[in-house]
Amino acid sequence: MNAADFPAWSREVAGRMETVLAGLLPSPRIMPSRLHDAMRYAALNGGKRVRPMLVFAAGRVSDAQPGRLEIVSAAVELVHAYSLVHDDLPCMDDDVLRRGKPTCHVEFDEATALLAGDALQGLAFQVLAENRLADDPDEQLRMIGLFALACGSRGMAGGQAIDLDAVGKPLTLPELENMHIHKTGALIRACVLLGARCGEPLEADRHAGLDRYARLVGLAFQVVDDVLDEAGDAATLGKTAGKDREAGKPTYTSHLGIAGARRFAADLLAQAHEALSAFDARADRLRELADFIVKRDR
Amino acid sequence: MNAADFPAWSREVAGRMETVLAGLLPSPRIMPSRLHDAMRYAALNGGKRVRPMLVFAAGRVSDAQPGRLEIVSAAVELVHAYSLVHDDLPCMDDDVLRRGKPTCHVEFDEATALLAGDALQGLAFQVLAENRLADDPDEQLRMIGLFALACGSRGMAGGQAIDLDAVGKPLTLPELENMHIHKTGALIRACVLLGARCGEPLEADRHAGLDRYARLVGLAFQVVDDVLDEAGDAATLGKTAGKDREAGKPTYTSHLGIAGARRFAADLLAQAHEALSAFDARADRLRELADFIVKRDR
Repeated sequence: MNAADFPAWSREVAGRMETVLAGLLPSPRIMPSRLHDAMRYAALNGGKRVRPMLVFAAGRVSDAQPGRLEIVSAAVELVHAYSLVHDDLPCMDDDVLRRGKPTCHVEFDEATALLAGDALQGLAFQVLAENRLADDPDEQLRMIGLFALACGSRGMAGGQAIDLDAVGKPLTLPELENMHIHKTGALIRACVLLGARCGEPLEADRHAGLDRYARLVGLAFQVVDDVLDEAGDAATLGKTAGKDREAGKPTYTSHLGIAGARRFAADLLAQAHEALSAFDARADRLRELADFIVKRDR
Repeated sequence: MNAADFPAWSREVAGRMETVLAGLLPSPRIMPSRLHDAMRYAALNGGKRVRPMLVFAAGRVSDAQPGRLEIVSAAVELVHAYSLVHDDLPCMDDDVLRRGKPTCHVEFDEATALLAGDALQGLAFQVLAENRLADDPDEQLRMIGLFALACGSRGMAGGQAIDLDAVGKPLTLPELENMHIHKTGALIRACVLLGARCGEPLEADRHAGLDRYARLVGLAFQVVDDVLDEAGDAATLGKTAGKDREAGKPTYTSHLGIAGARRFAADLLAQAHEALSAFDARADRLRELADFIVKRDR
């Protein structure tokens, strides 16, 4: 990655991810074709690729090799894609629109979407195991363990279960925060920590600073999502707006109002910058990315 | 494992798996409780534990450490359990009975069952990464890669997609075999190869013999399943009998008749024994296990 400005850099990351994922996902010419079509439909040509941006930005801090960051980013995006496919299923959020396109089970069918999600998760671990991510293979095993923990019942899948359980219930702010720490925060934290761990070993206090940054940015991401869900429109978002409120889901905007939620996001952003205070200019992309996550409009 | 007779040994494996899985699965006292309850419901107290038996029997051939075999067995059973939970969902086989108990989505709800399956898959990779399986960590990474491949679109999940696609279609015998090689064969093959690779390195021709054994036993397992589905009754099977035929699914019995399918299984069994001809008495459990798989009545 060169020193281009942030918008150019973010487009470069997104373009690179498309290429990397297209190469890692099995071709539809390989059996079972329909399943491979569905996996590609779910994982390609979509999203802001915020998570890969976090991986690449964190990798700068430790001078990580770009090839390693591509693999970690791909694994994260495969898991993110699987979680969206399963989250959109009728027994979950029952959504028909995602990134402006029909959701996977609408485009294919429910069973294929279910299996595509399952296979995307397996593929994520396959690419993490089959490619070199760290000089020390024991460190790589620890990285895979950290990633698996972030995906599972005490990470992303657990967050979705807490979310399900919360529909129609008056969650307190700390309970809401706990849900998001799991549902989206765990994978975002994994992006930052694993991106950094693809490079030179970090001292403990710098690792702790990155961890703090990751947790703050993960939470800010969700607060902004709630604001956009409430204030945005379907054309900009590429998904149905106001859906969470209609579903009786607790959100930051229902607790704090739109203006209050925006202030909360701004406060988290300031703390995220503070968490990086011990880092030099190599952390600038992380700083820019935090700004981008809080100030985005979709 | 001591040199007890096969029935005692198989009970010992099953009992040990129950203990190992109970220790690895998160407690329901940890949040999210309902998800952890569902994961435990799906993975504990059920099944013949044929796959762990394959892992332990293969581990004997290479003098593998029992602790490593426990971890590989647990990962396999977690993935097997997740596949059953997802397979039973209304959008797949829509089954209400499994091992004589309500299926996971009937006991809990569809969304919880979906997430429990997702989290079980993640947990499988977590335990494989967090525990020592081989002296050489690079070998362990290769083992995790092999396992992931067996789970994904070119393994088990792919086999389920081929199965879905086959409902109501007249598959040829080779097509039927291709489906089963993926759907059940890939994970069974992983059991044998990974069990053996937990111990002393095997020469290439012995590894190839084990691979051949695993493929034959995996196929025989499915042929016998079809016979039992057609000829068995729900009380013995613990699941609905004749269901595949009613669903218009191609089976070995629909191709070969019950007697023909039994002969085919016996032929595969003979070939499986032949594949082990270069092995000494340390492969006896594998031989007994092949006999057990073909001659079981449930």
